[in-house]
Amino acid sequence: MVSGKALLRGEFGALEDSGIGKVVRRGFGRPGVFPLWIGEGDRPTPAPIREAAKQALDDGHTFYNIPRGRMELLDALRAYLERIYDVPIDPGRLVVPGSTMLCLNFAAQMVLEPGDHVVVVTPHWPNVLSVLEMAKADITFVRQEAREGHWHLDLGKIEAACRPGTKALYVNSPCNPTGWIMPPSMVRTLLDLGRERGFMIFADEVYHRNVFDGDVAPSFLDVATPDDPVISINGFSKAWAMTGWRLGWLVAPAGLEHQLSAYSTVLNTGATSFAQFGAIAALGDTGEPIVRELRDQYREGFEVVRRRLGQHPKIELREPEGAFYAFPKIKGMTDSLAFCQQLLDEENVGTAPGYTFGPGNEAHVRLCFAMSAERLDEALERLVRFVDRHC
Amino acid sequence: MVSGKALLRGEFGALEDSGIGKVVRRGFGRPGVFPLWIGEGDRPTPAPIREAAKQALDDGHTFYNIPRGRMELLDALRAYLERIYDVPIDPGRLVVPGSTMLCLNFAAQMVLEPGDHVVVVTPHWPNVLSVLEMAKADITFVRQEAREGHWHLDLGKIEAACRPGTKALYVNSPCNPTGWIMPPSMVRTLLDLGRERGFMIFADEVYHRNVFDGDVAPSFLDVATPDDPVISINGFSKAWAMTGWRLGWLVAPAGLEHQLSAYSTVLNTGATSFAQFGAIAALGDTGEPIVRELRDQYREGFEVVRRRLGQHPKIELREPEGAFYAFPKIKGMTDSLAFCQQLLDEENVGTAPGYTFGPGNEAHVRLCFAMSAERLDEALERLVRFVDRHC
Repeated sequence: MVSGKALLRGEFGALEDSGIGKVVRRGFGRPGVFPLWIGEGDRPTPAPIREAAKQALDDGHTFYNIPRGRMELLDALRAYLERIYDVPIDPGRLVVPGSTMLCLNFAAQMVLEPGDHVVVVTPHWPNVLSVLEMAKADITFVRQEAREGHWHLDLGKIEAACRPGTKALYVNSPCNPTGWIMPPSMVRTLLDLGRERGFMIFADEVYHRNVFDGDVAPSFLDVATPDDPVISINGFSKAWAMTGWRLGWLVAPAGLEHQLSAYSTVLNTGATSFAQFGAIAALGDTGEPIVRELRDQYREGFEVVRRRLGQHPKIELREPEGAFYAFPKIKGMTDSLAFCQQLLDEENVGTAPGYTFGPGNEAHVRLCFAMSAERLDEALERLVRFVDRHC
Repeated sequence: MVSGKALLRGEFGALEDSGIGKVVRRGFGRPGVFPLWIGEGDRPTPAPIREAAKQALDDGHTFYNIPRGRMELLDALRAYLERIYDVPIDPGRLVVPGSTMLCLNFAAQMVLEPGDHVVVVTPHWPNVLSVLEMAKADITFVRQEAREGHWHLDLGKIEAACRPGTKALYVNSPCNPTGWIMPPSMVRTLLDLGRERGFMIFADEVYHRNVFDGDVAPSFLDVATPDDPVISINGFSKAWAMTGWRLGWLVAPAGLEHQLSAYSTVLNTGATSFAQFGAIAALGDTGEPIVRELRDQYREGFEVVRRRLGQHPKIELREPEGAFYAFPKIKGMTDSLAFCQQLLDEENVGTAPGYTFGPGNEAHVRLCFAMSAERLDEALERLVRFVDRHC
């Protein structure tokens, strides 16, 4: 008699909660917990976006629609991308299959054969690694390094990591967890490398509007032609405070409209129909003031971090250029998971342990500073008290 | 210089719209079109379910939540399953990762290695085949046969199709497109076969409440122990008219709670947060009258089909026992796609071509009879007129 458990494939059986999940599981729902662990703020999605979804529910938009995304949504998305990047985008290259996480799976399924070699820029978000592992990818990490208080990526290391058969490069800019932003010159050089060596660039650009200087981060869409080996992955969660909506998008190379449609159908048969109306509101005039207001809040959040942690003798704080995380190194700390668990238990502050963002981060902790300044300030006061006590 | 298109994996490049998608693409949005092509009715989700989601939006439920599903939802789902099947269900076996389609992908990712042999009961829904093809499965079809006006499945053929390494059996009961329901004795025998031969049963039970006789279809959950090799896949779309919500669930073998959590995170990081409140309403007292009212409508729909098509000399109609499709054979018809395209162009009636439901169905057409009786009647009158003219 064979049990169900005996029939799992190895990669599924080996799945574990990420370090973020481990801490969240320990503390989810604790009264008064300060949630710096997950990438979202503490304010619900702004009302105009919520009202658009409520109106859609009232109007009976509860049916199937085009799996690649409602026509009005794809058109609004095209107009948005053309506006922020100032390049023409064929709407046949766009898909809104569901969440940004689903877009990452979508991209992996487009390209990766079992055993394919993928270069991953690290520190990286742990979920990405699991997507690649489930696809049986062979992974080489290239690490950003901290220098003079900032994070940097060495292009020579990327070139050195590539092999003749390298199939893809995964890079996230603005970066979760480091806040690093790829400069325009590096975008161009990496694109040239992808063209020459023949690998796909999985460009995770979900923090594209979460930048401290300017309005939008440099993107592969700024410079890539429609035929180039680039898949840009993005979404609504971070710029419009829409994490629970599960809506993201993907810009694929040209000429794949039929495959994008077919795979959207087969993977999820479309994103939640009435939620798509919220996304349409976000992309239009309603949404732009929201993006700016949230960005101001995140900038203020980092000022709170700088004030609380910047001069602490045990805390090495690097300046993020984008996203909404600090990823400090804590001197004397060697077990980031134990640190985060103990911090949660003693001070009710939830953070994400460094180890889960890839090799070399065992002494780091990730703090999301998207929450409102006053609460954030209290959370960091508690963190500092904890460091003073233990490190 | 390598283009993006050159880097696709073969299975993705080979994806095509299903036959359903081909006809829908041709006719979507045509004024006055009769949509018998897709599996949904013409009434929006009943108001109490929509109101629950609107309330959740008002209450600010727009954040991340537990990726496996909100605790209240998993608890409501457990209570619902225990009520309809009268068996205890450990909530640790439940996942609501997003849509039912996503649950099918989830199940495939749990089990299938490239090259694994899978037996598929056919006629089958085309999307399922694409999921298995994307997973590089090696597929053998076993066909239900029509006898005396009904569909039947021959167990001996399933046994004959199994090989020593067969990894899974996919079976959908009540069946899209035939309306066949697996009798309880066959559920037990197939379960025994899975236990002995060591294959996973992918039990697609999404039409579990769409039955013409009784309240709920026989399920593998009626007889399987928690350790058995069964993954039951189900969802909200068909019983509660919630197709656009993209919410389904999966009941996995016991002992996999951590893997289910981790993979939910990695695949989609949860279903749309405020939509989950609609699902909670559907599973409770609010939802049961809705299920019954919709079922009455579908029964009435089949009466309309019987009245219009039952005695037609060119139309071989089999009696469905569940779901909400008729899958008649049209005598003299040899190209189901051409038939559906021409029917759409001449009579503005959208149907699904038989070929897309697997081998042997080229002379069939699938009609969804979930729409309200009056409109359905006019659509079928047009269909009959078309058959009279051409066949």
